[in-house]
Amino acid sequence: MQPEKSCEKLSIRVIDYTKDHLEERECIELTRAWSWISRQTVTWIDVVGVPEHDELVELGRQAGIHPLTMEDITVPDQRPKMEEFGSYLAVIVRMLSVEGGGIASEQVSMVFGENYVITFREQPFHIFDKVREKLHNEQSALRSAGPDFLVYTLLDAIVSVYLAILDQVDDRVEDLQGEVLAFADPLALKRIYALKEDLVTIRRAVVPAREVLGSLASRESALIRKETVPYFRDAYDRCIQAAEIAEFSRDTLAGVMDLHTSNQSNRLAEITKFLTIIATIFIPLSFIAGFYGMNFPNMPIVNSPFGFTSLLLLMIGIAAVMLLYFRKKRWI
Amino acid sequence: MQPEKSCEKLSIRVIDYTKDHLEERECIELTRAWSWISRQTVTWIDVVGVPEHDELVELGRQAGIHPLTMEDITVPDQRPKMEEFGSYLAVIVRMLSVEGGGIASEQVSMVFGENYVITFREQPFHIFDKVREKLHNEQSALRSAGPDFLVYTLLDAIVSVYLAILDQVDDRVEDLQGEVLAFADPLALKRIYALKEDLVTIRRAVVPAREVLGSLASRESALIRKETVPYFRDAYDRCIQAAEIAEFSRDTLAGVMDLHTSNQSNRLAEITKFLTIIATIFIPLSFIAGFYGMNFPNMPIVNSPFGFTSLLLLMIGIAAVMLLYFRKKRWI
Amino acid sequence: MQPEKSCEKLSIRVIDYTKDHLEERECIELTRAWSWISRQTVTWIDVVGVPEHDELVELGRQAGIHPLTMEDITVPDQRPKMEEFGSYLAVIVRMLSVEGGGIASEQVSMVFGENYVITFREQPFHIFDKVREKLHNEQSALRSAGPDFLVYTLLDAIVSVYLAILDQVDDRVEDLQGEVLAFADPLALKRIYALKEDLVTIRRAVVPAREVLGSLASRESALIRKETVPYFRDAYDRCIQAAEIAEFSRDTLAGVMDLHTSNQSNRLAEITKFLTIIATIFIPLSFIAGFYGMNFPNMPIVNSPFGFTSLLLLMIGIAAVMLLYFRKKRWI
Amino acid sequence: MQPEKSCEKLSIRVIDYTKDHLEERECIELTRAWSWISRQTVTWIDVVGVPEHDELVELGRQAGIHPLTMEDITVPDQRPKMEEFGSYLAVIVRMLSVEGGGIASEQVSMVFGENYVITFREQPFHIFDKVREKLHNEQSALRSAGPDFLVYTLLDAIVSVYLAILDQVDDRVEDLQGEVLAFADPLALKRIYALKEDLVTIRRAVVPAREVLGSLASRESALIRKETVPYFRDAYDRCIQAAEIAEFSRDTLAGVMDLHTSNQSNRLAEITKFLTIIATIFIPLSFIAGFYGMNFPNMPIVNSPFGFTSLLLLMIGIAAVMLLYFRKKRWI
Amino acid sequence: MQPEKSCEKLSIRVIDYTKDHLEERECIELTRAWSWISRQTVTWIDVVGVPEHDELVELGRQAGIHPLTMEDITVPDQRPKMEEFGSYLAVIVRMLSVEGGGIASEQVSMVFGENYVITFREQPFHIFDKVREKLHNEQSALRSAGPDFLVYTLLDAIVSVYLAILDQVDDRVEDLQGEVLAFADPLALKRIYALKEDLVTIRRAVVPAREVLGSLASRESALIRKETVPYFRDAYDRCIQAAEIAEFSRDTLAGVMDLHTSNQSNRLAEITKFLTIIATIFIPLSFIAGFYGMNFPNMPIVNSPFGFTSLLLLMIGIAAVMLLYFRKKRWI
Repeated sequence: MQPEKSCEKLSIRVIDYTKDHLEERECIELTRAWSWISRQTVTWIDVVGVPEHDELVELGRQAGIHPLTMEDITVPDQRPKMEEFGSYLAVIVRMLSVEGGGIASEQVSMVFGENYVITFREQPFHIFDKVREKLHNEQSALRSAGPDFLVYTLLDAIVSVYLAILDQVDDRVEDLQGEVLAFADPLALKRIYALKEDLVTIRRAVVPAREVLGSLASRESALIRKETVPYFRDAYDRCIQAAEIAEFSRDTLAGVMDLHTSNQSNRLAEITKFLTIIATIFIPLSFIAGFYGMNFPNMPIVNSPFGFTSLLLLMIGIAAVMLLYFRKKRWI
Repeated sequence: MQPEKSCEKLSIRVIDYTKDHLEERECIELTRAWSWISRQTVTWIDVVGVPEHDELVELGRQAGIHPLTMEDITVPDQRPKMEEFGSYLAVIVRMLSVEGGGIASEQVSMVFGENYVITFREQPFHIFDKVREKLHNEQSALRSAGPDFLVYTLLDAIVSVYLAILDQVDDRVEDLQGEVLAFADPLALKRIYALKEDLVTIRRAVVPAREVLGSLASRESALIRKETVPYFRDAYDRCIQAAEIAEFSRDTLAGVMDLHTSNQSNRLAEITKFLTIIATIFIPLSFIAGFYGMNFPNMPIVNSPFGFTSLLLLMIGIAAVMLLYFRKKRWI
Repeated sequence: MQPEKSCEKLSIRVIDYTKDHLEERECIELTRAWSWISRQTVTWIDVVGVPEHDELVELGRQAGIHPLTMEDITVPDQRPKMEEFGSYLAVIVRMLSVEGGGIASEQVSMVFGENYVITFREQPFHIFDKVREKLHNEQSALRSAGPDFLVYTLLDAIVSVYLAILDQVDDRVEDLQGEVLAFADPLALKRIYALKEDLVTIRRAVVPAREVLGSLASRESALIRKETVPYFRDAYDRCIQAAEIAEFSRDTLAGVMDLHTSNQSNRLAEITKFLTIIATIFIPLSFIAGFYGMNFPNMPIVNSPFGFTSLLLLMIGIAAVMLLYFRKKRWI
Repeated sequence: MQPEKSCEKLSIRVIDYTKDHLEERECIELTRAWSWISRQTVTWIDVVGVPEHDELVELGRQAGIHPLTMEDITVPDQRPKMEEFGSYLAVIVRMLSVEGGGIASEQVSMVFGENYVITFREQPFHIFDKVREKLHNEQSALRSAGPDFLVYTLLDAIVSVYLAILDQVDDRVEDLQGEVLAFADPLALKRIYALKEDLVTIRRAVVPAREVLGSLASRESALIRKETVPYFRDAYDRCIQAAEIAEFSRDTLAGVMDLHTSNQSNRLAEITKFLTIIATIFIPLSFIAGFYGMNFPNMPIVNSPFGFTSLLLLMIGIAAVMLLYFRKKRWI
Repeated sequence: MQPEKSCEKLSIRVIDYTKDHLEERECIELTRAWSWISRQTVTWIDVVGVPEHDELVELGRQAGIHPLTMEDITVPDQRPKMEEFGSYLAVIVRMLSVEGGGIASEQVSMVFGENYVITFREQPFHIFDKVREKLHNEQSALRSAGPDFLVYTLLDAIVSVYLAILDQVDDRVEDLQGEVLAFADPLALKRIYALKEDLVTIRRAVVPAREVLGSLASRESALIRKETVPYFRDAYDRCIQAAEIAEFSRDTLAGVMDLHTSNQSNRLAEITKFLTIIATIFIPLSFIAGFYGMNFPNMPIVNSPFGFTSLLLLMIGIAAVMLLYFRKKRWI
């Protein structure tokens, strides 16, 4: 046994439990896991990192797992799905996380049979540790239930992450809407596109996960106990809710985009209106000024004593009429 | 028995009835409700407020209610749904109310079995009181029917609220459309967005409620008597209607939004057109005025006796030709 | 018997027929209708106006009609639907009519059993009279068929009205499209919105009516004879066609709206282009004129003998170059 | 027998065939067709034109065809459909043709039973003649097959016409897209709307025809031999393809419309940009010129010997700075 | 045997294999292929080029292949589909390739029965050679499996090409989005339309291929062994993923299009704003300059000693107020 070697690239943790007993081991070799699985107790093998292909194939051969399943686990961009292969069920979903402001997504694979669950993921994350802590508690429902309940608990934790992240995203979308309604934030476009991409990432995780949970909740399989079905149904309902929130956020975001576009053109319209009014008032006045700047001798009124005053009054009159007209038209 | 303690945070009311007899009690302890449920009469326990989790679990244990159902009741943002658990049916819908101009939405949970209905809601509202009054009337159909009919009556009252609120919202949408058609209300955008949000709230209540009622109307369950099915079907039809009205209001609102945008750009277009016409007429005239303002000696016609008059006529001619051209093009 | 009293608010007409015999009575009391229904002949009771609730309930009690059906009949804004209640079928559809340029819609309810049809409507309309005339003709297929065929005949007449009205509306939409394609009618927007509302009214009648006829055409019910099924199927096909025409009209109207918007912005663009060209040509020329209007002594060329002529040629040259550039750019 | 009379308004052609034998007659009376149908051979009665209603009804009575079918045949704007009536199948589809640049559509009805096919159409068209020629060829598969295969051959010919016309339309759409991408064709809008209408006509023929062929391909009917089913399935596949091409053409056309709109606004934007740059450069210069046109005595620099030169340099400097600013902003 | 003759227009390659034995021959005559097929071993006949119709029909007659299938193979623009004909399954899909920057698509037909696979394609392509190399390897799973597994291997290779090409296209779409977000690339429109067309080509191959693989994965056919079903299911999942990526790319591209349009109008808005501000400031100043350019004698302040200075200060004051106003309005 060389746990060190395995642990260089992989972190493998085995938890073997019954109602009364629990044994936990870290960093064993993947190929030796079979000895645990073949016991009558429930065994959870949690693999973090990318296992070597040969080791996986060997484990698959021992545990009776189809090579296609093993391939799906190692290729990291699978679409979430659930497949039944006689003696086991394979579930692939995506975990979401917030990373540097954006949403990242990562594949989590689960294979479970009569008395074992094997989970594969690239990165460690907190929520699986919480499930492990629960397992250590002898009173926990997990301890007396089978591997299907462990799978439910893990999937439910993942759906909770979906809902938490969607809450955040939804808040950000609503904040953005508020700001855009208040005035045109020049960076709004970038923020809209960033949120749009986040929602695409989320939807690509949540929508097929909903199908996966729907299949698990309605499945007639010896591997899913009758008592566990309501739990999967509950997780399914929450995942439907997550998909709906994602849909609503997307709609709201599309509305914010429209609003932003509309804001920008309104802004331009306001400036244009200002120019228009200034220009429209001064154009006739400037013409009159230019007119009396012509070098014709003996232009009318130029030499009359009230000429200048009348001209001034004419100019003021024209400006006033214009302003009244604009006011009447509700342009100002 | 310490009803006072319970009543601090909760208002619990128990109504126990048969055709001939009715007993009502307020503010009992939740955990003592079981003694009522276990009677052969129909018992309605109406809980207003958020019950303590432990009490709920205890009640659930006594009444044989699944912990998942109890969890759904306490978590307030459930998606409306209906679930059957052997001895009882759990129904979650959302109540709508008008609050400060906007629409608020609140979860209402109902659990009903062979001879009891338990309802949970956060706020008291009028329509449940009306049902209670009906119950006090010995002639009421409610008194001789089972708990399924009580559930129907409550759900039907909720659907009536949906329809009433939709009527109001639809009126507001049509008013807004009228105003926007008449002229560009500067606040229209804010009102459109407020109505849009209201319609989202309504749709999130009505659309899944329709599914819930559809399931109840088509369910083969010992808990729903054959005589009650047409009633659920009727409530289902009304909820379909509510969903359709919400859809139509949304479409109309989208049209109002388009109209508003179009109004705003038409308004700007009108101002721009005005400027354009003023400017286009005066630009050549101002050029001529500027031309004769040049300090060249011996400019043509300047010193001819009819020079000034001919220039004036030229200017008037140019303006007239412009105006005729605009008229011909239907621009003015 | 006090027919007068009933006729104040209601017009009730009873037609009782077999192949060989027909009896018609007007303005009887609603509550006495049962004596007709209980005969072995086919009875058609045609109620025009809003009956008193109590009378209806009494009739329902006699004829074995469920209170919910009676409620649907009296509440005038039901969604079109069909419901089977053991001994009878209840059908609710909407009649359309052209009223003051717009489309009005009104509820028509039909209840039919083994040997009777009861129809309820608020307003009298012509097409039911035509069916009555047909009934008076002994050779008519109606006379030898059952109440299901009478219901088919009435529904088919209503679908014919749908198609006729849709034809009108479609023509108006196409006329409008032609006018909008030709030039921007300033009232087009109002007409588009009026037609849009008409199409909403029509769709709210036609779409659920299609479902109703689909149910009738595919129903395994003792109340619908095998020979009548092809007729309902035919009416169903026509109603599908009506729904499709409504859909196509709506699409066309959306296109007209786009066209109108595009027309309006093209119009503004044309005006703007005109201003732009005028302004762009005169701006440099006016600058030159202004330049030589400066009061500097000894400005170049001012005092040269060909100064003025060269300046004039420069101005004409600038204008010509501008015009050629615009032409090359295909702007004019 | 008065074939002349019938041929005035109708062209009726009867082809009666078995594998070894074929008889063809033109212009017989419709009501005498039954004598042909009742033979054991396969009979194709091809009616071109609108038959008199009474003759049709009489034929229907003889051949056992339902009056509703006969009505569908005479009313020319039926929606394509297929109906089974015990002893025969009725198929209504639409033939498309290119007429004066646009697409015209016309109803073709087929009724076929154990040993006959009757086809009705308003106009003669070439493709049915081709099928007739094939029938004259003794080696043709048509001759040894039943009426269902003749119906397949006719429908397949019609689907071929759909595909040929769609090819043309698709080419026209792509040509238009090319032209619109190259520059804004002022007539593009009219051409887009003409093509849009053509596509509507095509879709109204193709989409329901697809359903008709789907029903024929999947039908369990004694009238459709097992050997013919793959042929109907093939025609069904081609009709799906036609519907998809129509869909894609419509999408492309919508894209062309967007492109046209965008082209037009870009064109305006280019002109506006040109004006803007010219105006922005000259506005300050004209101000300076106007400034030094003021009649103040002793204006600065006016009388200095380098005054004019410095002013000229200032003007050139301002213009240069503006141009550099525009270049930096990538506006020119 | 004249392989040369066949090879002029066709390249035909026959591979006949069992677990232990493999024989490969090139350029045989198509009509002699039947002698290979009739052996008990698995035979793959790979035809590259367009075979002569008569030879195909002869082969079809020998191998019991329906004439319709043969027709589908020779007509090159079939919609991808799968059809079962008793003794064999016919599969038509489309191969994609990158050609001169754009995506080209080509039909690949496969017919497979109990012990043979015949593939038809117009162009040679690399991925089929790879499968042939695998066949030469005795350890390969292909050698011990049946023709269904060979078909899976070929289809899976085609789906891999879909995914690889979609990856490229998706990268190009994202690059374009990045560039368009950074600034308005004048050629963006052309690139958007080119990518749009590529995605149409891809979707027309991928979407129906998904249906084909779905049918193969769920088919109850003696020709598809139970062991092969999970493989087809896996290929089906990958094809679903390909269709989803195509969908997402299309959505992103639509977003890029919007962004481009928005960019262009923002660009114009920026220029317009600049002009507006310049013009609005200078219009009143120019008027004042023009005013004092009028040739009235004794204009006010003209002859006062501080006249010029006060006027200058007035002008500076007006410009400053304007700039402050713009700043306050956040226009600059």
